[in-house]
Amino acid sequence: MRKSVGAYLIERLQQLGVRRIYGVPGDYNLEFLELIEQAEGLTFIGNCNELNAAYAADGDARLSGISAVLTTYGVGDLSALSAIAGSYAEGVPVVMISGIPPLHAIAQRALLHHTLADGGYENVMNCYRQFTVAQARLMPQDAATEIDRVLGAAWREKQPVYLQLPSDTCCVSVSVPAGNDISSSPGSDPVQLQAAVTEMARRLEQASRPVLLLDALVRRYDLGARVRQLSEMLDIPFATLATSKAALCETSPRYQGIYGGKASSPALYDLVRQADCVIGLGVRFVDATSGYFSQSFDSDAFINIGAFDVRCGADAFMGVGAADLLDGVLAHLAARASSSRPAKAAPAAPTGAPDRAIGTAEWGQPAFWARIQTFLRTGDVVLADNGTSLVALTHMRMPAECHFVSQPIWAAIGYTLPALLGALNASPKRRHLLFIGDGSFQMTAQELSSILRAGHRPVIFLLNNRGYTIERMILGENAAYNDIANWDYAALPEVLGPSGGAICLRAGNADELEAALRQAEDPSHLVFIELAFAPMDGPTGIASFGGVVRHYDYGAFGEG
Amino acid sequence: MRKSVGAYLIERLQQLGVRRIYGVPGDYNLEFLELIEQAEGLTFIGNCNELNAAYAADGDARLSGISAVLTTYGVGDLSALSAIAGSYAEGVPVVMISGIPPLHAIAQRALLHHTLADGGYENVMNCYRQFTVAQARLMPQDAATEIDRVLGAAWREKQPVYLQLPSDTCCVSVSVPAGNDISSSPGSDPVQLQAAVTEMARRLEQASRPVLLLDALVRRYDLGARVRQLSEMLDIPFATLATSKAALCETSPRYQGIYGGKASSPALYDLVRQADCVIGLGVRFVDATSGYFSQSFDSDAFINIGAFDVRCGADAFMGVGAADLLDGVLAHLAARASSSRPAKAAPAAPTGAPDRAIGTAEWGQPAFWARIQTFLRTGDVVLADNGTSLVALTHMRMPAECHFVSQPIWAAIGYTLPALLGALNASPKRRHLLFIGDGSFQMTAQELSSILRAGHRPVIFLLNNRGYTIERMILGENAAYNDIANWDYAALPEVLGPSGGAICLRAGNADELEAALRQAEDPSHLVFIELAFAPMDGPTGIASFGGVVRHYDYGAFGEG
Ligand SMILES: Cc1ncc(C[n+]2csc(CCOP(=O)(O)OP(=O)(O)O)c2C)c(N)n1
Ligand SMILES: Cc1ncc(C[n+]2csc(CCOP(=O)(O)OP(=O)(O)O)c2C)c(N)n1
Repeated sequence: MRKSVGAYLIERLQQLGVRRIYGVPGDYNLEFLELIEQAEGLTFIGNCNELNAAYAADGDARLSGISAVLTTYGVGDLSALSAIAGSYAEGVPVVMISGIPPLHAIAQRALLHHTLADGGYENVMNCYRQFTVAQARLMPQDAATEIDRVLGAAWREKQPVYLQLPSDTCCVSVSVPAGNDISSSPGSDPVQLQAAVTEMARRLEQASRPVLLLDALVRRYDLGARVRQLSEMLDIPFATLATSKAALCETSPRYQGIYGGKASSPALYDLVRQADCVIGLGVRFVDATSGYFSQSFDSDAFINIGAFDVRCGADAFMGVGAADLLDGVLAHLAARASSSRPAKAAPAAPTGAPDRAIGTAEWGQPAFWARIQTFLRTGDVVLADNGTSLVALTHMRMPAECHFVSQPIWAAIGYTLPALLGALNASPKRRHLLFIGDGSFQMTAQELSSILRAGHRPVIFLLNNRGYTIERMILGENAAYNDIANWDYAALPEVLGPSGGAICLRAGNADELEAALRQAEDPSHLVFIELAFAPMDGPTGIASFGGVVRHYDYGAFGEG
Repeated sequence: MRKSVGAYLIERLQQLGVRRIYGVPGDYNLEFLELIEQAEGLTFIGNCNELNAAYAADGDARLSGISAVLTTYGVGDLSALSAIAGSYAEGVPVVMISGIPPLHAIAQRALLHHTLADGGYENVMNCYRQFTVAQARLMPQDAATEIDRVLGAAWREKQPVYLQLPSDTCCVSVSVPAGNDISSSPGSDPVQLQAAVTEMARRLEQASRPVLLLDALVRRYDLGARVRQLSEMLDIPFATLATSKAALCETSPRYQGIYGGKASSPALYDLVRQADCVIGLGVRFVDATSGYFSQSFDSDAFINIGAFDVRCGADAFMGVGAADLLDGVLAHLAARASSSRPAKAAPAAPTGAPDRAIGTAEWGQPAFWARIQTFLRTGDVVLADNGTSLVALTHMRMPAECHFVSQPIWAAIGYTLPALLGALNASPKRRHLLFIGDGSFQMTAQELSSILRAGHRPVIFLLNNRGYTIERMILGENAAYNDIANWDYAALPEVLGPSGGAICLRAGNADELEAALRQAEDPSHLVFIELAFAPMDGPTGIASFGGVVRHYDYGAFGEG
């Protein structure tokens, strides 16, 4: 069969489930845009800039499974690089496509705009090599094979990939394979799988104090149902790292909270430390998710399940898919149901907090977050930008079936506003709540216009504390560099979406917050709430965090 | 002598003339920010995001000679990469400094936030290697040497450089050299210089139809006075490439316009083609500045002066500084003044157009730009973003002593708004005019708040033509991907600078434009004028350009 390179790329993207491509036009990608416009079931979402486009695609992929970005060469793909690196750090499959100059120009090293005008055409590729798991410049001679290789890698590894589509190659027709499936996952090695299942089941059966430690693997490979089943079958308590918050239902009686070494609750810290079997789901301890590497447990008792391997103490089983492993263990346990351990008393589930207004005298972040806890609803998509918002929300309990979107590892401020656009596109029926600081908001503020333009109706909480509060906690409490311009935030939606019909509110005390939250229950409008907090106000416990970071980053020189 | 690494870096930056560092704080750069705050004569300018910060530094460096950016690792420096690549493409010395994780963490490959959490600490450096002329990770053992090497390269080559400053290294004190001067330029090789001067003078003396072709070298190495002298002494007509627009006074009777191959005026095209001595100042023909490589002249008659070499026809002289060469040639010619060629009749200088309102019936880009021609004043700093604005302004005649800021090679839309902030900081006494399309504006719109916050008072012309007009000329005239959200642009300054006191106006016809221009004469306010144009309106002659680009990018597949 023959197809144009562009058409084949679109076909393969759609087979993987890509429904939306985010991006910005440019002279090197216009023909591909024409093909996208023609493709049924695929929509191009224009963004204000390329960084925002890639953030939006990341947000979309977190809810839909995979997404894509289209930019033009140099000015476009490089502007998106940090976002794609973020997708890599957090494990989100985003297909980054760049329309690049025509092959004839590359061959003759022509000096073109959007390049350094030195004839070099490898520099952008060299950058993307650092931050994607597969890359290709599509050439007519092997475009189809390369598309399959690169998209297959994105799908299998749940990581970003990079494709360069030369402008004159898009409409060249090539012969393409028929019928092979790039979304099939590599099968597990049967011998290794069997050995791993046996070993893991053995350890579980012998354990008297097991615990499940969930990390991003659960979300990336959609393992939630299997993990829940395991937890329920053996009544194993579970905790999540901040990187997988709400991956399993936080209302479960077995949920123990967020594990982050000494930054965890003392009870959870002890539970993990005393466990005789710690089952990790892709556990990776990063400074920010481990209380600066203060995790503590018996490494011999650690089973860490990866996407394609599993480590049990000192032993490793390679070529073992996580889903296959869990299925095997579950089947094994089911078969021996009679021998299952007696159910342990799990801590009681927290009773849903009553929807109670905060006292009119109380105002500040602790009171605010306590109130928000009761505002959250089953099924919400909750986005938290870096800064005090993420710290607070990480330690709150999400209602059932919530999806939590944040970037605890890459930790780029401004990520969540464009990611909100993507999340809304991917799950338009759910309620979306965004919590974002003024500093984060200013990074990518223009993308609010795309949210309004699409007619979406999230609730946006803008925490205006006049600057970079979380930085102030580390250094420069009163330093000018931590101050930022003060905007009339609540007036912005009307400017960016003059016909958008957003409800814009301000709240600087408990009564105003109550009034605003009442209006926010109206699902027929986008609701934007600007909240006023003092610069050094923060969620409970945040102040001590600053000292830890300061000491790690600056050592003795940072003191005093 | 001993100094902390951070203090030494600051000292060296100041010696080169850096007065302002743009950027965004982050936990890895806070200590360096503390040092900046303490340094006299050095100011940290906080930006809304890192891309904008690097654009602002570029704009500053274009007027002040050199500037710097400070970001935090990964999320910050990668976000700024495209802007730094732009500085490279256009030849602007920007010192990019990134506060990176502490050396102890790098040494043990710690999994930190703002990394891929895989222990790798080379990936960001690998990216910057592609787009800067020198790089270093500052380590206590050789920080001073490395600072001198890297800053020296920026200064000599007028190109961006990249420094990584580990958070725990900033305040480590090291022994530093005393008194050596990194801003001294390498001397020319005397033998080569003498030979080059002789050859160039010989060619000039024999030429009967010489012409000067100016490119970015003039601005980068501040060669304007020398080139003007040469032009005047021998009465040589000159033209500039779009990349050096207004590098010499465009009101000179010798100025022939913008040279761009067949995109030039027919008279200029012929003048260059028939010249028997074409003196180039760093000439580099890029698609966008050469009518897609349609330049035509006698290559044997071409003398192309580079920063450190000169090519005369087939001969090259290496290690010859451009200023030394021009000085030598000027001295040589002065000594032989008697033998100088008789002055040729240069085309008459254009008489300054009268300040005439356009007819009330006329509205559209051609009429608008004709009117703007008379609005321009001696000494203005004029910024033109990519899109129809740059096309129009490139072909207008700038009054005397204007500075023209644009990005014809890298051509990233959105560059000029943050660059305006930098230009304003570098030359606060001059009048600044920005012309920018709605699509470009949306890219970096938030940085308007920094301009307002600083109390600057430029005149901003926002051309609202409902989308990407210049892309429509290439492909997709009516395509949805070329549409963008419509903002209430003129209401934005009040939101981003609630206490800014900007004058915001809208003009959709000739009378409104006149009224707005009258108000724009008031230098005590920032004036923001939103102009309404039809989507397919553009400056005269733009339509044909679209076809040329389409054919180059897409070939036969792009037709029809
Ligand atoms: C792109 C990027 N630039 C800089 C940083 C460093 N940084 C981390 S948190 C923060 C301040 C966030 O301020 P804000 O969003 O207002 O939240 P707050 O802590 O005030 O609630 C900054 C600048 C970052 N994480 N990402
Ligand atoms: C960062 C970046 N992204 C995309 C492009 C491709 N591009 C070039 S011009 C242009 C449209 C500019 O539109 P606008 O600023 O509204 O100017 P107009 O042509 O409408 O006057 C685009 C999208 C670019 N040059 N830079």
